[in-house]
Amino acid sequence: MTDLKFDKEVTALLVIDPYNDFISEGGKVWDRLKAIGEENNCVPNMLQVLNAARQAKLRVFYALHRRYRPGDYETWKYVAPTQKAAWSHKIFEHGTWGGEIRSEFTPQAGDIVAQEHWCSSGFANTDLDLLLKKHGIQRLIVMGLLAHTCVEATVRFAAELGYDVTVIRDAVADLSDEFMHAALDVNLPSYASAIATTKEVVDSLSSLKALGMSAR
Amino acid sequence: MTDLKFDKEVTALLVIDPYNDFISEGGKVWDRLKAIGEENNCVPNMLQVLNAARQAKLRVFYALHRRYRPGDYETWKYVAPTQKAAWSHKIFEHGTWGGEIRSEFTPQAGDIVAQEHWCSSGFANTDLDLLLKKHGIQRLIVMGLLAHTCVEATVRFAAELGYDVTVIRDAVADLSDEFMHAALDVNLPSYASAIATTKEVVDSLSSLKALGMSAR
Amino acid sequence: MTDLKFDKEVTALLVIDPYNDFISEGGKVWDRLKAIGEENNCVPNMLQVLNAARQAKLRVFYALHRRYRPGDYETWKYVAPTQKAAWSHKIFEHGTWGGEIRSEFTPQAGDIVAQEHWCSSGFANTDLDLLLKKHGIQRLIVMGLLAHTCVEATVRFAAELGYDVTVIRDAVADLSDEFMHAALDVNLPSYASAIATTKEVVDSLSSLKALGMSAR
Amino acid sequence: MTDLKFDKEVTALLVIDPYNDFISEGGKVWDRLKAIGEENNCVPNMLQVLNAARQAKLRVFYALHRRYRPGDYETWKYVAPTQKAAWSHKIFEHGTWGGEIRSEFTPQAGDIVAQEHWCSSGFANTDLDLLLKKHGIQRLIVMGLLAHTCVEATVRFAAELGYDVTVIRDAVADLSDEFMHAALDVNLPSYASAIATTKEVVDSLSSLKALGMSAR
Repeated sequence: MTDLKFDKEVTALLVIDPYNDFISEGGKVWDRLKAIGEENNCVPNMLQVLNAARQAKLRVFYALHRRYRPGDYETWKYVAPTQKAAWSHKIFEHGTWGGEIRSEFTPQAGDIVAQEHWCSSGFANTDLDLLLKKHGIQRLIVMGLLAHTCVEATVRFAAELGYDVTVIRDAVADLSDEFMHAALDVNLPSYASAIATTKEVVDSLSSLKALGMSAR
Repeated sequence: MTDLKFDKEVTALLVIDPYNDFISEGGKVWDRLKAIGEENNCVPNMLQVLNAARQAKLRVFYALHRRYRPGDYETWKYVAPTQKAAWSHKIFEHGTWGGEIRSEFTPQAGDIVAQEHWCSSGFANTDLDLLLKKHGIQRLIVMGLLAHTCVEATVRFAAELGYDVTVIRDAVADLSDEFMHAALDVNLPSYASAIATTKEVVDSLSSLKALGMSAR
Repeated sequence: MTDLKFDKEVTALLVIDPYNDFISEGGKVWDRLKAIGEENNCVPNMLQVLNAARQAKLRVFYALHRRYRPGDYETWKYVAPTQKAAWSHKIFEHGTWGGEIRSEFTPQAGDIVAQEHWCSSGFANTDLDLLLKKHGIQRLIVMGLLAHTCVEATVRFAAELGYDVTVIRDAVADLSDEFMHAALDVNLPSYASAIATTKEVVDSLSSLKALGMSAR
Repeated sequence: MTDLKFDKEVTALLVIDPYNDFISEGGKVWDRLKAIGEENNCVPNMLQVLNAARQAKLRVFYALHRRYRPGDYETWKYVAPTQKAAWSHKIFEHGTWGGEIRSEFTPQAGDIVAQEHWCSSGFANTDLDLLLKKHGIQRLIVMGLLAHTCVEATVRFAAELGYDVTVIRDAVADLSDEFMHAALDVNLPSYASAIATTKEVVDSLSSLKALGMSAR
């Protein structure tokens, strides 16, 4: 088991793309994500971590994918395959239910929502790095969707930019076991210092809260 | 088969980490890389592409990993797992043969060598993006090592930063088929607009050369 | 006189912060900016350049400062002086007239509006660099407000990131002659390859248009 | 007088371009810099701050300009004016005395030297931001050369990237009073939270040291 100890002064929870299109019944991608998502209890786990983080007074950050808007890609010289897919399927369409955050994950006062990202990394071409620095954050607990695209990209960028990262393996999901395996077992172990379970993270945050209550 | 057409004014070859430690007999990682590398003919393929690129007058760029130096990591608050491995094994040690580029790949006059990178992406914390822009480059042909770490990281960053990318699947290698599969079949198809063979790329560059000779 | 020749395939007009708070009668900063702005005919010049750019089919980009929203800075560990000023005066307040673009400068279909920036540079922590690359832009014609803060910061970043820059000296303004002098005469000559007049730029763009009409 | 209190866990001294070409008798730029530099006692002040920082156990970082090498700029599509000047005069030529750090400022064990920068900002296209983060640094005390180019550019970038900055006004120098004024009085007050004297900074660091000796 991983030994996880967090200092809330320098640690934040980073929630990636909790859009209806991904994790709500009726969302554009949900049908393809449902098998894995239900098997590992992803959405209830994400909620449990979010609540534990709020109770432990960890700052919560959101890294959100570009909500599709007409005209987004028509004039680009080159469009990456993942962007072509977003364009073609109008994923997270701006102004629609699919492009809204699933209600239980709606950002609250004090949460920090970074600018939307155009590809997969929550850091690329956004203010996420700035906003983390402005709050003194050096360590990230990461959860959200999809494991092998936005989650992996954001974790890779976080490591490149100097952050320490813990990924919660049952608070992410993907379209297939193969994709989960590539992200969680092949790639992320090189970049995340810990790949933990929801239970481990929640236990750690709860002890932090207990500590915080007595010590401060 | 992929249809590949390159314009040499905006296309460059990007060579990633052709260090002795990776691709030369006696290098620190070669024994673990040899099985895949010899199976797909990686080193001869890399050489063939490099020669074809030079003949077609494509600009050649190098993205090189930090050569290990004593004191690199001792004072860091957080060290990512891949950096701990580099530290522990002194990979690409500065001043040693393992930290030199394999001789056939030695940069030539006119080649551009970006600053060394600390983690896996050739773009993160380096001047690679600047130097590509200064030469008008918008498209990259990528080859080198390892498929699921530095190659994948550099391709992901390239896509995030706006570049169009072609990866040469038999001019990269890795420590296992599982790692190759994760990079080439699971992840890179979302970020590289083409994943081609050495033959396809060399054929395309040769036609470019023929074209170039008549037209200019 | 500066010799200015632009290729519209690689050149864009970059408009910085044409907010009512800056350049409209009644805006929060207009009273302090008015003397210089009227002396050099800044707003009509900006309009003239914008129209010339549109007619020459140059792509138009907007770099816009963060519109003030409550809660923006309260939780930051460090707030730079320029951000303290924005906070204190609620400059470009979101949802108010002052935080809207002056009507003649409203972005049109096909224009590209980058994400808002938090300090002074249109590039820092935004997608401006990505969006320029995605349109093949390598050269920028820059105008807007204020000369020594957002204009200078954006030009400095543009040069650092590899862009060629032309600044239009009578299509920028500032709060004092001293500030104009520091930006236009002391600093920008190191980073902008040309500091031209509205007339020079409009003449150049007009000839480009004529050329474009015959050639395409 | 400015009230300056530093916490050495999050504060670093950043030394910019202490090359012989700038601050040593016989350096290529020294003759033009000498008047200001001697008037404000720049070099002795820089040394005094460096020593005070070392005694207070502040981490010392170096941001160094690209040492000129033949071939640096010949193939670039666009070269900024400041880069043309560096090219033409071969400033900080690699392998020459002018491109060496003035001996009293030679980095010592434990100091961190960032990769060389190509234009003026120590952050642009380098690993400075990463290395600061890896050491938990959030505040910078900045000194070095030249006030209106590399110092100002680095301070502007630092503020954009989220750092708190103190500039030491008599531990920087420039080619003219006009340039000093533009940097120290016009521009930097928007980005540096303090512009202090050597005496103020050294007094503050000395008290930090006294504190550190009793408390740790």
